[in-house]
Amino acid sequence: MQFHLNGFRPGNPEISEPSEPPTRTDALPGEVDVLIVGCGPAGLTLAAQLAAFPDIKTCIVEQKSGPLLLGQADGVACRTMEMFEAFGFSERVLKEAYWVNETAFWKPDDASRDNIVRHGRVQDVEDGLSEFPHVILNQARVHDFYLDVMRHSPSRLEPHYGRRLLGLRIDAAADAPSHPVTVKLERTDGAHETVKARYVVGCDGARSIVRQSLGRELRGDSASQAWGVMDVLAVTDFPDIRIKSLIQSAHEGSIVLIPREGGYLVRIYVELDQLNADERVSSRNITIDRLIAAAQRIFRPYTLDVKEVAWWSVYEIGQRLCDKFDDVGEAEAASRLPRVFIAGDACHTHSPKAGQGMNVSMQDAFNLGWKLASVLEGRCAPKLLHTYSAERQAVARELIDFDREWAKMLSAPLKSATERDGVEPAEVQRYFIRHGRYTAGTATLYKPSLITAAPDHQHLAKGLMIGMRFHSAPVIRLADAKPVRLGDAARADGRWRLFVFADRQAPFARLGALCDFLAGSPESPIRRYTPAHADIDSVIDVRAVLQQGHRELELEAMPELLLPAKGRYGLRDYEKLFCPDLKSGNDIFDMRGIDRDAGCVVVVRPDQYVAHVLPLDAHGELAAFFDGFMIVQA
Amino acid sequence: MQFHLNGFRPGNPEISEPSEPPTRTDALPGEVDVLIVGCGPAGLTLAAQLAAFPDIKTCIVEQKSGPLLLGQADGVACRTMEMFEAFGFSERVLKEAYWVNETAFWKPDDASRDNIVRHGRVQDVEDGLSEFPHVILNQARVHDFYLDVMRHSPSRLEPHYGRRLLGLRIDAAADAPSHPVTVKLERTDGAHETVKARYVVGCDGARSIVRQSLGRELRGDSASQAWGVMDVLAVTDFPDIRIKSLIQSAHEGSIVLIPREGGYLVRIYVELDQLNADERVSSRNITIDRLIAAAQRIFRPYTLDVKEVAWWSVYEIGQRLCDKFDDVGEAEAASRLPRVFIAGDACHTHSPKAGQGMNVSMQDAFNLGWKLASVLEGRCAPKLLHTYSAERQAVARELIDFDREWAKMLSAPLKSATERDGVEPAEVQRYFIRHGRYTAGTATLYKPSLITAAPDHQHLAKGLMIGMRFHSAPVIRLADAKPVRLGDAARADGRWRLFVFADRQAPFARLGALCDFLAGSPESPIRRYTPAHADIDSVIDVRAVLQQGHRELELEAMPELLLPAKGRYGLRDYEKLFCPDLKSGNDIFDMRGIDRDAGCVVVVRPDQYVAHVLPLDAHGELAAFFDGFMIVQA
Repeated sequence: MQFHLNGFRPGNPEISEPSEPPTRTDALPGEVDVLIVGCGPAGLTLAAQLAAFPDIKTCIVEQKSGPLLLGQADGVACRTMEMFEAFGFSERVLKEAYWVNETAFWKPDDASRDNIVRHGRVQDVEDGLSEFPHVILNQARVHDFYLDVMRHSPSRLEPHYGRRLLGLRIDAAADAPSHPVTVKLERTDGAHETVKARYVVGCDGARSIVRQSLGRELRGDSASQAWGVMDVLAVTDFPDIRIKSLIQSAHEGSIVLIPREGGYLVRIYVELDQLNADERVSSRNITIDRLIAAAQRIFRPYTLDVKEVAWWSVYEIGQRLCDKFDDVGEAEAASRLPRVFIAGDACHTHSPKAGQGMNVSMQDAFNLGWKLASVLEGRCAPKLLHTYSAERQAVARELIDFDREWAKMLSAPLKSATERDGVEPAEVQRYFIRHGRYTAGTATLYKPSLITAAPDHQHLAKGLMIGMRFHSAPVIRLADAKPVRLGDAARADGRWRLFVFADRQAPFARLGALCDFLAGSPESPIRRYTPAHADIDSVIDVRAVLQQGHRELELEAMPELLLPAKGRYGLRDYEKLFCPDLKSGNDIFDMRGIDRDAGCVVVVRPDQYVAHVLPLDAHGELAAFFDGFMIVQA
Repeated sequence: MQFHLNGFRPGNPEISEPSEPPTRTDALPGEVDVLIVGCGPAGLTLAAQLAAFPDIKTCIVEQKSGPLLLGQADGVACRTMEMFEAFGFSERVLKEAYWVNETAFWKPDDASRDNIVRHGRVQDVEDGLSEFPHVILNQARVHDFYLDVMRHSPSRLEPHYGRRLLGLRIDAAADAPSHPVTVKLERTDGAHETVKARYVVGCDGARSIVRQSLGRELRGDSASQAWGVMDVLAVTDFPDIRIKSLIQSAHEGSIVLIPREGGYLVRIYVELDQLNADERVSSRNITIDRLIAAAQRIFRPYTLDVKEVAWWSVYEIGQRLCDKFDDVGEAEAASRLPRVFIAGDACHTHSPKAGQGMNVSMQDAFNLGWKLASVLEGRCAPKLLHTYSAERQAVARELIDFDREWAKMLSAPLKSATERDGVEPAEVQRYFIRHGRYTAGTATLYKPSLITAAPDHQHLAKGLMIGMRFHSAPVIRLADAKPVRLGDAARADGRWRLFVFADRQAPFARLGALCDFLAGSPESPIRRYTPAHADIDSVIDVRAVLQQGHRELELEAMPELLLPAKGRYGLRDYEKLFCPDLKSGNDIFDMRGIDRDAGCVVVVRPDQYVAHVLPLDAHGELAAFFDGFMIVQA
């Protein structure tokens, strides 16, 4: 955390100074830059991201009358934790959440088919996949943390609750006004309001009115398998009650058991009936008692004495997807820029059992947020906005495919001595392990585009794959010898980052030459795209990692760009230089396959995805990459 | 964190349900159990501790008109971080603070005596000394965190500001009323208030009115060395500006440089003049400009361009100590119980440069807090309260001695080719390293008393010294395979803890026998001292550590005492059983020298100090220890 740059200020440094005196009323503003519809995980991620930019006028509306208290989703993947760190609240989640350390697998006991028996237990996340664990926390608490980020931002952003979207209209004419999207909303007292927006984002769930206003729809399988889910406080002798467990019984169906935060609560997903074609589960009038009874049958020989039900629901599995996540049809993409987007459940729905829904929705918004901010702040060309639907629709399609297969596997009969047609129990476990990186959220790979380069120089950093999230590793900060996670440098602040890995030759001729280019050349992307009077790292933030131990290096010998003078006083920023953590044996150069002789530059997007890997002396190529989408500043 | 035991409750689990409807006015209550005078580190630690007990009526008053914004103290020792973890806010401090990773030593350059040169750089805290780092954070923020703990407690405790203590009177008669201490206070508007208290604690600083009311005084050296201190935002080419540095110049005096939180701020202690006998530094009219100029001379050849002074002060070093920390004279100790205590600067003052002041003060209060609570709740005999002064006065005496020597060393001339009488520069560094455990706060050793046993069985746990703080180590929680710090089990909740280290023989005959004794015997301290209807772990909390890996053990085979049914539903607590972290190679049995063949019981006080180490089968000896000071419950 860096603070006091422009003068000492007492109090909580996480609470920014307000950009304007507080004048908030509950009335919606008439004109905004971005209107976000829906306060779910996607909407709040986007709002928190935009709140970092005090010059952008953001409004977020929600149909419900107040914040969520009981959440549906609860799985927080490793990749999502990395994003939470960028938003500054990972430590709160780490403290409060259940940590999924292992996963147990249960099958029918061959000796007594009515009973279940454990057939495996595996580490949930492979070693080294992320610096953060896979955790479980009530969605409502994730909302709370985002609301705090918004509340503490310079714009003091707060949602407007009790607003139902009636519809929206886009003026797509070439001479359309600056705020071409007109949105009609209804308050709970029946009054109507109109908001004009530059951009609208529908984070309004599976029945999204925004999506319907665009004439788009979710397409996919009809549901056929009913499931129930309950959060309970229970007494049981099931030994894995505090371990995530996949339980497949012989004749009574399956359970996915997810221990929950606080040490006592547990979530139990219970397989219920096969539904007829087009039948909805609501027609079956399933009660909580029936749900508990079904769980008790699957748990045999163990008992399950439910003392309190905190929340429960029944649902049918269906994998459905929207074919485009913005208002621009495939045919118009070259001629028209998007004005309205959809994110999260508004564009993809699937089963909850792989724990992906909330995570993918938040990543949708994280992908869109910096793009909207960059365009609104005049840093990037608006064509950048096309990449949102292109990147995220492909991710959603993979998710739908994965979920279909996983849900089928959990509902299929198991093979045994007497039943030969089913799935091998061990196969379920193997499938789970094989897809570990996927469910951790670290397998996402964006295709080459104007913001993701072709992998021409990937060999310089084999473990930092272009198109994938920047894989952090432990390092030592040179100036204060602090052990830190390198990836933590990537805050959710809309900045691009250059992680420069020096070659092994001190005194760093090529690193020096690169810094000279970046600091001084008229071709430098830093010179071209950073507004006058802004801090030198405010658009593109350069961090360097050297190969030597931190006591072998002299701070005075480092390029000035890496000790930049900033703020009203010209104070030096000492947090740009890092060394490997040689004492712990975790050398980032080895861990990420960096070419020690050549070094490299790793270009990281504001959403933490690797955009490019380049040789240290490819100054022109580096400049050309940014020229593809950034706007020269006066 | 454990929550939802008595039913699911939405929202932030760190905010307890209020014990009473909020009816707070600013008027002081007429009668309280404990009146705390002073909202410094000692007062707030004590208030936060007592706030954990909703049945205890606590009131804390402060002469200033509101919370501190700019703090004097800033050093937070490892031991203090362990205590902050017990209060539940260590992660906030870790996030916001500067981490002291290394310390640099600078001396006159032999080639050019007017210049300084680095002569050493060492790791600040030895490996494995604590699971927490040594950090630096504005005292005001530490206050904020305590105030949050109080605000979120069942009693919603808030300080009463703007109250000046006029004096107090103790009715020491045998037939004194239940609230024998009468305290007079004055509000800022001049109005007087009277509070009657069972106990009063003076945390009201070096000029403590409480201490004066007891007729006690600080005794010690007259000050003779003036120092200045300033928190500044500055531009400098001094390379260790982000490393804690001890700088000794040839002729211009010394600097202690402490980098501060936020990445830019730095604290600089500057040696100023020798004072005449009984002269006060205030008489010298030292200005901030003179302070900066003195620092600039010491820093040569490096520059120091101060851009903003956030806070500064001048002071003289003086080591002073009070001979008793309560109202009972040595001669009366057998016949009278203490009613009034003093803590922190009210009983010991010294130089700030070893970073001890705030830390020792908070440990004073942590020592006293659980004792007051235990007596007020009727769990312990009031004679327990004598141990506060006995234990903490000895600690303060050591501190005063250490500080005297360290301050002398920093002010002494340095030996060189031309100056033969001074201190060897390398000796300063050696002294610093040798006293690392002391300054980390981990060297405190309480002498045998009714709550600290003689070390008859110390050989069973050589690394968990009786009388010293319980030295935590990493373990794996059996039920959910989570890697945790064992010491984190010791919350600031007034409970005693038994850490039972099993011998190597499964199926744990001696562990089982001990649990049977504790759960079932009429001689068991758990049976004797736990109130009827209270949870079985509410007075003495038993945790067990087994030698086997967590996948080798069956939860079902564990003694029921270690999976206790709790709360209104009888839900099982799954957080009592631990295993070594064999995968990481950090086996707690090796790290703490536990006898693997014998195992042992380590008795830990509510303030995290080891009270006793016993063989697993010493049931009678264990019972006898608690009989020495606890009260049998009906």
